[in-house]
Amino acid sequence: MKDIIADTATEIRDMRIRGAGRIARAGASALAEYAREYGGNDLERFRADMAKASDILLASRPTAVSLWNGVHSATRDVDSAGSFEEARESVVRNGAAFVESSEKAVETIAKIGAKRIKDGDVLMTHCNSSAAIGVITEAVRQGKDVKVYATESRPWRQGILTIRDLSAAGVDVTLIIDSAVRTVMSKVDRVFVGADTITSSGSLINKIGTSQVALAASEARAEFNVCSETYKFSPKTLFGDSVTIEERDIGEIIRPGEMPEGVKVFNPVFDTTPAKYIDNIITELGIMSPGSVYGVMVRQLGDRISGYM
Amino acid sequence: MKDIIADTATEIRDMRIRGAGRIARAGASALAEYAREYGGNDLERFRADMAKASDILLASRPTAVSLWNGVHSATRDVDSAGSFEEARESVVRNGAAFVESSEKAVETIAKIGAKRIKDGDVLMTHCNSSAAIGVITEAVRQGKDVKVYATESRPWRQGILTIRDLSAAGVDVTLIIDSAVRTVMSKVDRVFVGADTITSSGSLINKIGTSQVALAASEARAEFNVCSETYKFSPKTLFGDSVTIEERDIGEIIRPGEMPEGVKVFNPVFDTTPAKYIDNIITELGIMSPGSVYGVMVRQLGDRISGYM
Amino acid sequence: MKDIIADTATEIRDMRIRGAGRIARAGASALAEYAREYGGNDLERFRADMAKASDILLASRPTAVSLWNGVHSATRDVDSAGSFEEARESVVRNGAAFVESSEKAVETIAKIGAKRIKDGDVLMTHCNSSAAIGVITEAVRQGKDVKVYATESRPWRQGILTIRDLSAAGVDVTLIIDSAVRTVMSKVDRVFVGADTITSSGSLINKIGTSQVALAASEARAEFNVCSETYKFSPKTLFGDSVTIEERDIGEIIRPGEMPEGVKVFNPVFDTTPAKYIDNIITELGIMSPGSVYGVMVRQLGDRISGYM
Amino acid sequence: MKDIIADTATEIRDMRIRGAGRIARAGASALAEYAREYGGNDLERFRADMAKASDILLASRPTAVSLWNGVHSATRDVDSAGSFEEARESVVRNGAAFVESSEKAVETIAKIGAKRIKDGDVLMTHCNSSAAIGVITEAVRQGKDVKVYATESRPWRQGILTIRDLSAAGVDVTLIIDSAVRTVMSKVDRVFVGADTITSSGSLINKIGTSQVALAASEARAEFNVCSETYKFSPKTLFGDSVTIEERDIGEIIRPGEMPEGVKVFNPVFDTTPAKYIDNIITELGIMSPGSVYGVMVRQLGDRISGYM
Amino acid sequence: MKDIIADTATEIRDMRIRGAGRIARAGASALAEYAREYGGNDLERFRADMAKASDILLASRPTAVSLWNGVHSATRDVDSAGSFEEARESVVRNGAAFVESSEKAVETIAKIGAKRIKDGDVLMTHCNSSAAIGVITEAVRQGKDVKVYATESRPWRQGILTIRDLSAAGVDVTLIIDSAVRTVMSKVDRVFVGADTITSSGSLINKIGTSQVALAASEARAEFNVCSETYKFSPKTLFGDSVTIEERDIGEIIRPGEMPEGVKVFNPVFDTTPAKYIDNIITELGIMSPGSVYGVMVRQLGDRISGYM
Amino acid sequence: MKDIIADTATEIRDMRIRGAGRIARAGASALAEYAREYGGNDLERFRADMAKASDILLASRPTAVSLWNGVHSATRDVDSAGSFEEARESVVRNGAAFVESSEKAVETIAKIGAKRIKDGDVLMTHCNSSAAIGVITEAVRQGKDVKVYATESRPWRQGILTIRDLSAAGVDVTLIIDSAVRTVMSKVDRVFVGADTITSSGSLINKIGTSQVALAASEARAEFNVCSETYKFSPKTLFGDSVTIEERDIGEIIRPGEMPEGVKVFNPVFDTTPAKYIDNIITELGIMSPGSVYGVMVRQLGDRISGYM
Repeated sequence: MKDIIADTATEIRDMRIRGAGRIARAGASALAEYAREYGGNDLERFRADMAKASDILLASRPTAVSLWNGVHSATRDVDSAGSFEEARESVVRNGAAFVESSEKAVETIAKIGAKRIKDGDVLMTHCNSSAAIGVITEAVRQGKDVKVYATESRPWRQGILTIRDLSAAGVDVTLIIDSAVRTVMSKVDRVFVGADTITSSGSLINKIGTSQVALAASEARAEFNVCSETYKFSPKTLFGDSVTIEERDIGEIIRPGEMPEGVKVFNPVFDTTPAKYIDNIITELGIMSPGSVYGVMVRQLGDRISGYM
Repeated sequence: MKDIIADTATEIRDMRIRGAGRIARAGASALAEYAREYGGNDLERFRADMAKASDILLASRPTAVSLWNGVHSATRDVDSAGSFEEARESVVRNGAAFVESSEKAVETIAKIGAKRIKDGDVLMTHCNSSAAIGVITEAVRQGKDVKVYATESRPWRQGILTIRDLSAAGVDVTLIIDSAVRTVMSKVDRVFVGADTITSSGSLINKIGTSQVALAASEARAEFNVCSETYKFSPKTLFGDSVTIEERDIGEIIRPGEMPEGVKVFNPVFDTTPAKYIDNIITELGIMSPGSVYGVMVRQLGDRISGYM
Repeated sequence: MKDIIADTATEIRDMRIRGAGRIARAGASALAEYAREYGGNDLERFRADMAKASDILLASRPTAVSLWNGVHSATRDVDSAGSFEEARESVVRNGAAFVESSEKAVETIAKIGAKRIKDGDVLMTHCNSSAAIGVITEAVRQGKDVKVYATESRPWRQGILTIRDLSAAGVDVTLIIDSAVRTVMSKVDRVFVGADTITSSGSLINKIGTSQVALAASEARAEFNVCSETYKFSPKTLFGDSVTIEERDIGEIIRPGEMPEGVKVFNPVFDTTPAKYIDNIITELGIMSPGSVYGVMVRQLGDRISGYM
Repeated sequence: MKDIIADTATEIRDMRIRGAGRIARAGASALAEYAREYGGNDLERFRADMAKASDILLASRPTAVSLWNGVHSATRDVDSAGSFEEARESVVRNGAAFVESSEKAVETIAKIGAKRIKDGDVLMTHCNSSAAIGVITEAVRQGKDVKVYATESRPWRQGILTIRDLSAAGVDVTLIIDSAVRTVMSKVDRVFVGADTITSSGSLINKIGTSQVALAASEARAEFNVCSETYKFSPKTLFGDSVTIEERDIGEIIRPGEMPEGVKVFNPVFDTTPAKYIDNIITELGIMSPGSVYGVMVRQLGDRISGYM
Repeated sequence: MKDIIADTATEIRDMRIRGAGRIARAGASALAEYAREYGGNDLERFRADMAKASDILLASRPTAVSLWNGVHSATRDVDSAGSFEEARESVVRNGAAFVESSEKAVETIAKIGAKRIKDGDVLMTHCNSSAAIGVITEAVRQGKDVKVYATESRPWRQGILTIRDLSAAGVDVTLIIDSAVRTVMSKVDRVFVGADTITSSGSLINKIGTSQVALAASEARAEFNVCSETYKFSPKTLFGDSVTIEERDIGEIIRPGEMPEGVKVFNPVFDTTPAKYIDNIITELGIMSPGSVYGVMVRQLGDRISGYM
Repeated sequence: MKDIIADTATEIRDMRIRGAGRIARAGASALAEYAREYGGNDLERFRADMAKASDILLASRPTAVSLWNGVHSATRDVDSAGSFEEARESVVRNGAAFVESSEKAVETIAKIGAKRIKDGDVLMTHCNSSAAIGVITEAVRQGKDVKVYATESRPWRQGILTIRDLSAAGVDVTLIIDSAVRTVMSKVDRVFVGADTITSSGSLINKIGTSQVALAASEARAEFNVCSETYKFSPKTLFGDSVTIEERDIGEIIRPGEMPEGVKVFNPVFDTTPAKYIDNIITELGIMSPGSVYGVMVRQLGDRISGYM
């Protein structure tokens, strides 16, 4: 019965489920389904099992603030529930609500971001972000004529997914290798990328290579837009926690036998884009600048802020 | 007997022979060998055959200024030769001389560049340049303790060659993907890259991604050094010819079936690094700034300059 | 009786009334006067007529957020009014209140901005902004010795108005053409400009040429200050609406016969200054940075925010 | 009995008590002690004497926003007190509370800031800031291996205090002259400085030389962090008051006889670092960007905001 | 008979003859014609008259290095001539030779520069430079499809001449005001401007507004090209002479009655573009970077260099 | 008799003789005087003694290219001399000639540089450079009204010498500490500094702090001028030799007892200013840009170039 939790955790760890929004929704859904199917009626045991399930899910991507938010949202009323049934229902209800509002946020961002795009624009995107792709396909759906450069995004080559998503939506898309970003940037009007995490001082943590795209955009006066649901704003960064940037297996980069002994590989998953290279953060609460993230975080946290110190 | 010419041209076209210096030497060598084995003694036929052989070689990489210089150097006395034998010998001699001076230039650059490296430096290199690798291995040979980041250099992944070359020379080397350049740059003291071509106003044409490395170096105050024999200075750029940047087959980037119909791929081989991001051009004639390239070109060309207009 | 509306709309369209603050006040005043003189006592007809009058005014400058705010402020209690008389009085009262608070905002900004100016400063202003001129004249009134460069501001040459305003206030002012901005900037300590609109991510939309002045100020380390009442903060930009930049008649630039057939003219009224070039936004609510605009907007809108999506 | 006030004022003026936090706490403490020992029981006389004492203290560093906040906090209930005893006790209590919360803020900042530091980091600090030193020593206490460059900080050479503080805490510290900042910066990962005052648009006023350190950090992509309790955010800057930068005695720079007649000395105590060079402001309320300062100020002031205009 | 000299000087002074190349050729032509028609046969009187004529011409634009070069070239053999006839013929011959080589230089520059332009490029030009227009029309003549933005170039509005020249050559051209340069620059690939003077350290002196165009090009990564015959390289700048930037009559900017008494007008003719914003200097001797100007000057001057100190 | 050599070496080592030009002249003079007073007539012994004397002098500042040039110039004909007398006289003559041409170079630079200064300019200088001071005093001698900021230049405080030199010449001079450079720079039009060494790619090696002054000048669009005789161009840098930057005794920075045990001091004498921050290099051969240094070096070395590899 606990398979849904273990399976979801495995799929997240193996990157079959990928992307900050998708893993958050997967975590919240898994908890909701686990609660729905939960046998027995012992409140204390339920609480302990939900805590364990939460830990298993969180361990699959310990650094993902969105997953933390999804899991936390689904289980937030478990401790205050007066009965087993109440507790179980709260997880089912809260999990579903998180998924719905997360999906609605992507749609809202798509609508807001699409308005920024002008007919004839040349765009660029990096990696495979639902929010960024949503913005572009919404603009095309509205009849705007755009041309998109999608980066390959080594080592996982999520760019292949992106060209499929955009092509399926009828978008004129061209694939480039990551080294061609600066060359192509002189023709680009706007860049749209997603976010893994946004810090309290407005920096962006996202797929490795993002900061390089942002630097090249800044050099060429192209607009750099981050598409991010506000549940990717990380409260922990308020109090100094760095976002740990995972290193992944070197097998993602190198094949057996290719590399002489003694050579090392450095394979970070994410990089940090400084606030100064970000023109707009497009959220479901509107477009803001990096300087506004702290205020939004503090308003959203309200009294819960002390829990993050 | 003409196999040496056709084979060399094929190897250059298929990128089995790669790198501006190597193809120049291969071209000069092939002509020298062709001349040495040439049957008959008809001067006019010899001239015509050498011209044809030159054309075949040049067509294998029409944009490579180094190949042009190598071929031109080997054949430069054919027209003025008074006899068949004299002509044949001039090609053998000039071809060998070009190879020798080209190899000596690499060694000189290695010695000059190595002096720029300090014990404890963290270095970066991109693609697989003999001149840049020569500089680094010479520094290590002198006992300097350095750490090198080598980029993968998609799509051909010449970085695999580079980590082998450096590892074989006992250098502490770490492989990164091209998207990790900016992340790693904050730890880098100096970058060494090679050159395909240098223009009269001091721009660098080199493997795609080079300009991105240079931009990231400039942002992080890391020194950016170009290692280039002066036969890579392109006289044609004096008179406005742009360096044509080849696009290569998309099969280098994408596997059959990966890409939906209608999606395009843009796969340029080289990019252009503006002079303002280059700190030093290290040549066999010493270290200079991009502003000095024009003067060197004009001095080297002397009276031949009119031939380039 | 409806002449006041039509006349005001015409004066705005023909740019006899110009400047974001002035057109907002003109719109609110016109509605108040129209209501005051309104014949009859039918509430529904009054509502319909006020709606029509609002539409006429808004159509005279459809992109002006300040006009939208002025019209909206004057008419905001019409729908909730319980009687004709109540409705009419609300428009008279609200229209006058908007005018007063708008004028007070200009005064407050003048007082705040004047404190930023130091004795001996060299200043620059562009176009003809009441708020910016107010700041400068207030500083001079306080006895500070300043020297001002005013740009001509082609094509409407509002700089002629500015030199008259400043000269009348006893300010030492020098007129320059728009092309001389960078030359003169090396002597300038501070720039003060007005605002047409400020977006939620802190960009400034203002008279064409403003972004060029800001760029030159940034290059020369001169302080760039925007003087803006907060009713110029555009809530629509929160949700992605771009500020449409009108193009005006080419007759503003070219005389009949001057231009050969086939030549085009591009004559945009405004341009966009990125947040990174703005040091201070001086408002009636104090001095802030571009990063603070989003928070102010959200606080001001409160529950009304949903109306802007 | 009033000696405590006069002595404290003298010590502040002569810079025996130095640093924004320390002088604020000294001012609040002095008033508390003065109140505790106050003879008599006349409420009106007490009020007058406290006002005089406040003025004496404030005059010792008229530009220090932290001192203003300390004095203001200690005396804030004097006017509303119903009796002499109540008034006296309020000063004793409020003064102590300010000192405690100020000291707690330094500790909180130390904990937050220490998390930003990574094992192996090279750091720089300027002048002698308790908050910045607290951050560094906390990181070392947690077992992180760091290397710190401390600037001499002419003319008062507070760097000597800093090397003693850091050395006493077991930190590996190297002293450099102020002119060596840029040279050393190429090896630095993060800079931590304190704050004298932070303005509403996010600029930093701090010890002369700070803006030069920030500029060099920006050039070399080193992270620039300001450690600042929020009582250093200056409400007066909201409404345009510039922070007056004191000039101090030239005897701090030059010895008698060293300087020919007619030569001048310009000896400003502080300089202004523009917001664009600041990556993080680390406060007891979390890490924020300069764009967030206005919002925090407005929230903290609430209704009291009108008192600052 | 001396009318040709006086008339030419007047036309230059009144800006009926404009542009560095045109005034140089006009000066050389006028001297040649004056010599051809010269009555009498007294060598000494001829020498004195030629010196006077030279002075009159030079005084019409005392700062124009090109005029200086034209006059100097025409008269350079007068002093060494052995007879009146020889002297007269030398002026006729040398004047014509200068005109021819100057015109040939413009053609050579056109051919070189046109090669830099790619099919589909968007270009910008400022003022009315024969050399820059020559480059663009040559590219169009070769069948390249380009779009050109031409600035109005207040106060003399030479942009009107430019749109006529380009339109007559069948070029797709759009006129903008000088304030719209930065707005339009985001679409521009390459800028081509002429030169009044180039200094020994590679700065460009050209029509007011040029440095602003260059700054905006640099911000947007557009290529900035200067089209300049080498006779515009100013030897006097080698030895420190600044290029005096004339101020012209304020009537060029302001109409009678427009300006209140006491207002000043600053109306400089030229501005200085720093070398760092110049990508290429396109000359009849090839394309070079600003760092190469000194070397070319020294080679051209040879022994005459001492005459410039 | 050898005292003159030992004494001079000691004075250079102890920095009683300071400044690249002064030590070069001191070295050449000492050798000339040593030769003049030399007893005996054995050519071989003279050669050996001159070599020893040269070594002693060079060891006093092993990194000073100017000293190397002075010593080398004085002794250059010793080896080729046919007799003792001839050798002795060559040293006397060549030493005096070097001193004279070096002094003449300073005068020429003063005349050239002074022309760059405009009436009313605000200038800055760092450390105590004869060439830079010569430029400023020459401008004042010509009646130009300038104001100069001189930095203290810790640790040796050569700024005290500079204020004396400038004050004695009647210049309006203000002393600032090194940390105040950026604050003051917003008022500065031009900076003039001297040079210790200039490298083949145009970098400047000069007194610690120079690169910081250059960075601040670049940020504020102030012109940065290097005053340098061409004998400070270092041929060794052509072939990769870094300029070793000496560290000097920590007693220059810290007094006994001030520093806790374990604290380190880093006290470099010079720093490196990158070419991109240098607008003009003012030499006795005219004003050039950093990009022109290589060409000048190669021309000056001619055949001797092989001796530097």
